[in-house]
Amino acid sequence: MIGAGALGGYYGGRLAHAGNDVHFLMRGDYEAVRARGLKVESVRGDFHIHPPAWPSAAAMGRCDLLLIGLKTIHNDALAELLAPTAGPGTVVLSLQNGLGSEEQIAAALAAAEHAGEPAEAIVGGTAFLCSVRVGPGEIRHTDHGHVAIAEFRGGARKRTEAIAEMMRRADIPCEVHDSLARIRWRKLLWNVPFNGLGPAAAGAHAQAVLEDADLLAAARGLMHEVIAAARADDVALDPGLVEKMIESSRSMGPYKSSMQLDWEAGRPLEVESILGEPLRRARRAGIETPRLEMLYAIVRRISAGESRSSK
Amino acid sequence: MIGAGALGGYYGGRLAHAGNDVHFLMRGDYEAVRARGLKVESVRGDFHIHPPAWPSAAAMGRCDLLLIGLKTIHNDALAELLAPTAGPGTVVLSLQNGLGSEEQIAAALAAAEHAGEPAEAIVGGTAFLCSVRVGPGEIRHTDHGHVAIAEFRGGARKRTEAIAEMMRRADIPCEVHDSLARIRWRKLLWNVPFNGLGPAAAGAHAQAVLEDADLLAAARGLMHEVIAAARADDVALDPGLVEKMIESSRSMGPYKSSMQLDWEAGRPLEVESILGEPLRRARRAGIETPRLEMLYAIVRRISAGESRSSK
Repeated sequence: MIGAGALGGYYGGRLAHAGNDVHFLMRGDYEAVRARGLKVESVRGDFHIHPPAWPSAAAMGRCDLLLIGLKTIHNDALAELLAPTAGPGTVVLSLQNGLGSEEQIAAALAAAEHAGEPAEAIVGGTAFLCSVRVGPGEIRHTDHGHVAIAEFRGGARKRTEAIAEMMRRADIPCEVHDSLARIRWRKLLWNVPFNGLGPAAAGAHAQAVLEDADLLAAARGLMHEVIAAARADDVALDPGLVEKMIESSRSMGPYKSSMQLDWEAGRPLEVESILGEPLRRARRAGIETPRLEMLYAIVRRISAGESRSSK
Repeated sequence: MIGAGALGGYYGGRLAHAGNDVHFLMRGDYEAVRARGLKVESVRGDFHIHPPAWPSAAAMGRCDLLLIGLKTIHNDALAELLAPTAGPGTVVLSLQNGLGSEEQIAAALAAAEHAGEPAEAIVGGTAFLCSVRVGPGEIRHTDHGHVAIAEFRGGARKRTEAIAEMMRRADIPCEVHDSLARIRWRKLLWNVPFNGLGPAAAGAHAQAVLEDADLLAAARGLMHEVIAAARADDVALDPGLVEKMIESSRSMGPYKSSMQLDWEAGRPLEVESILGEPLRRARRAGIETPRLEMLYAIVRRISAGESRSSK
C-alpha cells in the first residue's frame, strides 16, 4: 500500500486484517504505526492491526500488487516510489481520484525500466469512501467503501476478478468493469461539481450547493459538461444520471468532499486530476466546457495558495 | 453628495473645490470632515476643502441635484435617504456600479411620494476612477476620473449637458451619451470578468487574470457572454471590444478592481449590481450565460462571508 492516509489506511488495513500480507509505505505516520499499529474505527467494524510499515520504497522492496492511495498531487514521486517496489509480474492498482493516474503510473514504470509493457501491469479503480485520518495511524471510516475496478488496457481478465475477490474477502464490496474510462468519468460526474464548487464558493459542501438555486444550476451545468467531455474518451453517459445523482446527493447530509476537506485544512487540492485533465481531454476533442474551464482556472489559483498566504 | 467614500469624496470634492455649493451626507467620516475638512490628494492636483457635511438626510434637506456615490449594497437605504433630500425638480444622478441603480432610485422616489414621474428625475452615469479612501475624510486619487452620463429615460437633453458642463468646469472629464443601457453594459464588459474573477480566484487582480492563460480564457468567455446579455437591453456591443479591452488592460499594471478591494477588506461585495442583475436580465431574455451564472453563484456565496467566518 503506497500512501496510507484516509483511503490507503482503510483499504490496506481491511486487506491486512483479512489475512493478506500487506506492507505499508508511509511517511508521516510511519513511527506511529511501527509503535502502536494501525487503528481503524469503521461502520463495518473496528480493528487494530500491527502490519509491516516502511519509511521508504527501497526498504519496502518488491511487491506482487501495489495499491496506490496517494493524493494525485504527489504523482511526480511515482517513478521513485515504483522503481524499487515494482518488479516483473507486479500489478499496480490505482485507487486515485480523477483522470490521468494510470498514464502517470505507466510513465513512471517506463522511467523505472520496468520489464514488460507498463500499461499491461496497470489496473485502475474508483473508490466511494467516506473516511478521515483522525491522527497518526488512526483512521475513521464513516460511510460507503465500495470500489469499482477495471483494467487500464483491455477488458476484465482473470487477475481483475482475482483482485476483486481479494477485496470482497476483506469486506470491501468490489465490482469489476470492462471500461476504466467509463467508471472514472462516471465518478467525475459527481466529483467535478461537488469537489470543484466547494473551494471556489467559500467552502460550500454538497448540501450547500444543493440548497442554493444558483450553485445548483452551476452544478447541473457542470455535470452536463462532464457528460459531453466523456465523449472524448468514447464514454457515453446517460444524461438522466444528472438528476439521479442530484437526488441521491440530497440524502447525503452535509457531506464534505475530499477537495473540500483538503481546502479546509489548507492543503493543495487535486485540481489537475479532478478538473484539469478532464478539461484537457475535452479541449483536445474540441468539446466546449465553459463552466469547467472557468472552475479549473479558479480552483487552480485557490490551490496555489494565493488566498491562504495573502489573507 | 450621498455617500462620500473613495468615489463620492473625489467627485463631490472636485465639484465643491470648483465653487459649487456641495453638501455631503456622510456616516463614518462626518466628524472628521466637520473638524478637519476633506483632503483630496490627486494626480490632477491636491486640494483641501471645508464643505458642509451632514450626519443625516433629514439634517441635509432638499437639494437641486443629488449625486449617489453609495455602494449598491446600501441601496435598500435609498428611500430613507431620498425622502428628505429630493423635492420637486430635484435631479438624481447615480454614479453607482453595474445595473439596477436607476430602477431602485425610481422605486425609492415613488416610495417617498416624490412629486412627478420618478423616472424623469433620474440620470445615470458610469465613472472610471482609481481612488481610495485612505483615512477619515482623506481620499487619494491615483488615475483616470472621467464620467459618462445619460438620461434614464429618453435621450440627452438640456439638463444632461448642463450637468456635464458643471463636471467639466470642476476638472472632471464628462461625456453625454444617448443610451444609459449602452454605457452601463459597456462598463460591465470589463467589470464582470475583472471584478468577478478576483474574489473567486483567490484575489486575482486584473494583471493576474491576464497572465494566467486559463483565467484569461474565462475572462474572454465572460466578456462574450456580457455582449450576448446586453442584447436583453437592446444594446449591441462590438465583439471587437473584447480584444481591445484585454489589450488596454495589459497596460494597467496590478490594478485592483473595487470588488477586489472590498474583498481584501472583508467588506460585502457589489455582487447583485455587477453580476446578479446582468444575469437576471439575460435569463429573462432567454440568453444563456453559463460562466456568468456560475461566477454569480460563487461570488454571492463568497460575499455572504462564509469563507471569512469559517476559516
